[in-house]
Amino acid sequence: MRLESLGERELISALRKEFSESRKDVILGIGDDTAVVRPGKGALLLTKDLLLEGFHFIRSLHPPYFLGRKSLNVNLSDIAAMGCVPKFALLGLGLPADLDTAWLREYFSGFKSATKEGKVILVGGDLSESKKVFISVTVIGEGKNIIQRKGARAGHLLYVSGYLGDSKQGLLLLKQGIKPGKNRKADPLLRAFLDPLPQVSLGQTLSRQKLVSSMIDVSDGLSVDLFHLCQESRLGAEIDLEKLPISPELRYFQKNPRSFALHGGEDYQLLFTVPPENKGALSRLQKKYMLTLIGKMTGRHDILVIDQRGKRKPLEIKGYEHFRDKRRTAPRRKKIRIL
Amino acid sequence: MRLESLGERELISALRKEFSESRKDVILGIGDDTAVVRPGKGALLLTKDLLLEGFHFIRSLHPPYFLGRKSLNVNLSDIAAMGCVPKFALLGLGLPADLDTAWLREYFSGFKSATKEGKVILVGGDLSESKKVFISVTVIGEGKNIIQRKGARAGHLLYVSGYLGDSKQGLLLLKQGIKPGKNRKADPLLRAFLDPLPQVSLGQTLSRQKLVSSMIDVSDGLSVDLFHLCQESRLGAEIDLEKLPISPELRYFQKNPRSFALHGGEDYQLLFTVPPENKGALSRLQKKYMLTLIGKMTGRHDILVIDQRGKRKPLEIKGYEHFRDKRRTAPRRKKIRIL
Repeated sequence: MRLESLGERELISALRKEFSESRKDVILGIGDDTAVVRPGKGALLLTKDLLLEGFHFIRSLHPPYFLGRKSLNVNLSDIAAMGCVPKFALLGLGLPADLDTAWLREYFSGFKSATKEGKVILVGGDLSESKKVFISVTVIGEGKNIIQRKGARAGHLLYVSGYLGDSKQGLLLLKQGIKPGKNRKADPLLRAFLDPLPQVSLGQTLSRQKLVSSMIDVSDGLSVDLFHLCQESRLGAEIDLEKLPISPELRYFQKNPRSFALHGGEDYQLLFTVPPENKGALSRLQKKYMLTLIGKMTGRHDILVIDQRGKRKPLEIKGYEHFRDKRRTAPRRKKIRIL
Repeated sequence: MRLESLGERELISALRKEFSESRKDVILGIGDDTAVVRPGKGALLLTKDLLLEGFHFIRSLHPPYFLGRKSLNVNLSDIAAMGCVPKFALLGLGLPADLDTAWLREYFSGFKSATKEGKVILVGGDLSESKKVFISVTVIGEGKNIIQRKGARAGHLLYVSGYLGDSKQGLLLLKQGIKPGKNRKADPLLRAFLDPLPQVSLGQTLSRQKLVSSMIDVSDGLSVDLFHLCQESRLGAEIDLEKLPISPELRYFQKNPRSFALHGGEDYQLLFTVPPENKGALSRLQKKYMLTLIGKMTGRHDILVIDQRGKRKPLEIKGYEHFRDKRRTAPRRKKIRIL
């Protein structure tokens, strides 16, 4: 069945049933002019991420169940990067009238699974007809010890969770026609792109234990996101190229995996700085969360990479940039001097 | 200059400067993984509205300054309908890479003017490249005496603010090539569509004085929104056709203004129910907010209109419905029986 046979009001009514889960901090969910919730005692976190067909995903290649999960989870990754707890979500969807309702069912099923894992309640949103699928999710979170992008000092250690670069390689493989479930080596890479998992538990643990001085999620790519951390703390950094966490699968498919780890994007891992005196406490979390020490912050005003021979050179800051990439204009190389 | 020459990061950096206004309840505005704000003592209101090029607006006909205002104000209208106070906004924008930055400047200037009028702080959002302009705004509000769609009783009086139907006629005139500032009679109608004003002050007054039992904003059209009120309170209603507030300008351009008033949509007026004992108190607000008594709620399970000869007939429930309208499928007529 196509969406045009269902119509907006029946879809809203179906969603109201599907997402009717209640919790004592939800006063009014889907169905009134606005949602009404009870805020907790901490500060309130607000974030919004867009996912657009043709720019963030290719509809024919992205299983709708995974897309539903990803559209919530990329927002949870932002809340994780603040060390906080996600609570409520709003979902804005633009959908083509000829969209198959089976696609929608899968999408909502995925979205719902992510709300359950993240302990988030969908409380409202908006629907519109559109030419392409577009998705706008807002997540509201709560927290006390909030970790910002700024706050690092020179000498603080630089850690990252998980593997870097898998997501970009996963997208490449998808575009080459490799589907999930067909190739054991490709699967973790495809999954990294199609269904990234937000590091919510890690973020909250780091915040609760007061172990870190600054944090960001790696969504634009390590080089760009490290650049943001440096900019906000008015510091430089050094990365040890040998230490970059690269998966065996990425090494298998990619002859230049380091470039993917540095500039890939959409990893949704956490990048954070740790005062040296917390190194011991942090090491207790290292295995559980797969944390890697990749370098340190410096008082210089540049970001350097150190190669296997100990040679330092400036890190090129590049990652996907909307409105610019894939255009006639040459990709801009960010200047290395920060201040 | 085109947006592709500016790029995403420079645009974000410009926005961060432009919307750097601070307030003591904003802990962290634009520029980190999420915004961080301090919630007030009341409940929290969450709402999100989409505006899509080609569906909600025609880019060549909608001056970007007004579009900027409207994209915030339609959300403030939802907060107004709950009788609450808007506080924070998130802005998601999909923009074509070849968009002229002058358009963007005007858009943001309009958006900013609406934040100032509404006492709202823009604290974050997301940008993406897209084929068409699309806008997703989230507004967070606060309030204590929250007015829902449900809560009316049989015999409660039905009021609406302002004029109905102007917005739809304004859109028609725009499509006929009539531009703002060229025709004194057309201007209020064009304005109703291009730059509707949310009834935030009225909503808050009604809530504070505890005068109303249920409320909704008229965004889909009077018939559809009254249907929502009736559905939520499990009641019927009667409307006096003679009483519908129709502007002299709508009468001038439209030989069937009542149909526009009943089914037009995008009026962004407030429709609310008042216990008869509050009629006196309400009358003191009537002139200031241009309130009209148009009918009452009934214990029947239908919505009736009363014509000039006192004859009752069922009200057709119709308004714009996404995914359905302008399609091969015939527009569905909502059944009159509600329960």
